[in-house]
Amino acid sequence: MNAQQQIIAQVVNAWAAQNKRISTFFNKYDDDTYLNEVAPGRNRAVYLLGHLTAIADDMLSLLGLGDKLYPHLEEQFLRNPDRFFEETPGIEVLKESWQNVNAKLTEHFAQMNAGQWLEKHSRVTAEDFITDPTRNKLNVLLSRTTHTGYHMGQLTFLIQKELAV
Amino acid sequence: MNAQQQIIAQVVNAWAAQNKRISTFFNKYDDDTYLNEVAPGRNRAVYLLGHLTAIADDMLSLLGLGDKLYPHLEEQFLRNPDRFFEETPGIEVLKESWQNVNAKLTEHFAQMNAGQWLEKHSRVTAEDFITDPTRNKLNVLLSRTTHTGYHMGQLTFLIQKELAV
Repeated sequence: MNAQQQIIAQVVNAWAAQNKRISTFFNKYDDDTYLNEVAPGRNRAVYLLGHLTAIADDMLSLLGLGDKLYPHLEEQFLRNPDRFFEETPGIEVLKESWQNVNAKLTEHFAQMNAGQWLEKHSRVTAEDFITDPTRNKLNVLLSRTTHTGYHMGQLTFLIQKELAV
Repeated sequence: MNAQQQIIAQVVNAWAAQNKRISTFFNKYDDDTYLNEVAPGRNRAVYLLGHLTAIADDMLSLLGLGDKLYPHLEEQFLRNPDRFFEETPGIEVLKESWQNVNAKLTEHFAQMNAGQWLEKHSRVTAEDFITDPTRNKLNVLLSRTTHTGYHMGQLTFLIQKELAV
């Protein structure tokens, strides 16, 4: 593995490590626990899992890797706030979707080389990409990794006895 | 800029972008606001700023870039929980330290090439590094970036009218 490949592998690993934290968290407690708000007046944990799954699913199209696996999640978990819809998919269903979409992404990422990570993502025009070549697939990966960490910080608050730091 | 340099630059930019979110957040409200807990029973915002500053300061030694600028922060913000000490540095003082340490790190990062990012960090032995060459400086940068995002997610909860997502 040359330096370039190693750097990309580490960035992909950082993304995978954040996903693993989320998976571990949602496998740790009874399903009912996740129906609570992470803090008073904030999103329920189940909503955040739906949100993270919808964001991951969206990466498939954003990175030009294929169609979304769960396009129906977009309306509820990306376009609307928690409790906008009366019904929420069950935790078990969301956990399976979360695993599946990350498995699919992982499969694609294993095939991608550094040059491909530097290609434009699907929502920037060729013209805009010339002006700002950092609007590429690597940038999507980096920002999605931090986004997952952001919500992991919030999910931690769900459990009363765990410290925040 | 070759592909390798661009990749490193984007990872450094992702780190800088998270820092900027923290800076923006702490410049947005009255100083007194940050004396509140981000959620009931959780860390005060001022503690999280001290914590993030101490973590950033620690990167100087972890990355072999020099001595810490604010070694006294370690005891209060890395080794002990919020309110363990009766006194906390003022928000203005912490904000200045936060800016200074990040400016110092930014200065160093601008001089580092890809090969240097793949060097071992200062807290892994040469032997362990042979076994796992990902225990390098790049890994520190990636994990600190997500760590900042994690606490940014929590800080968002401080402000009642802002939505969590």
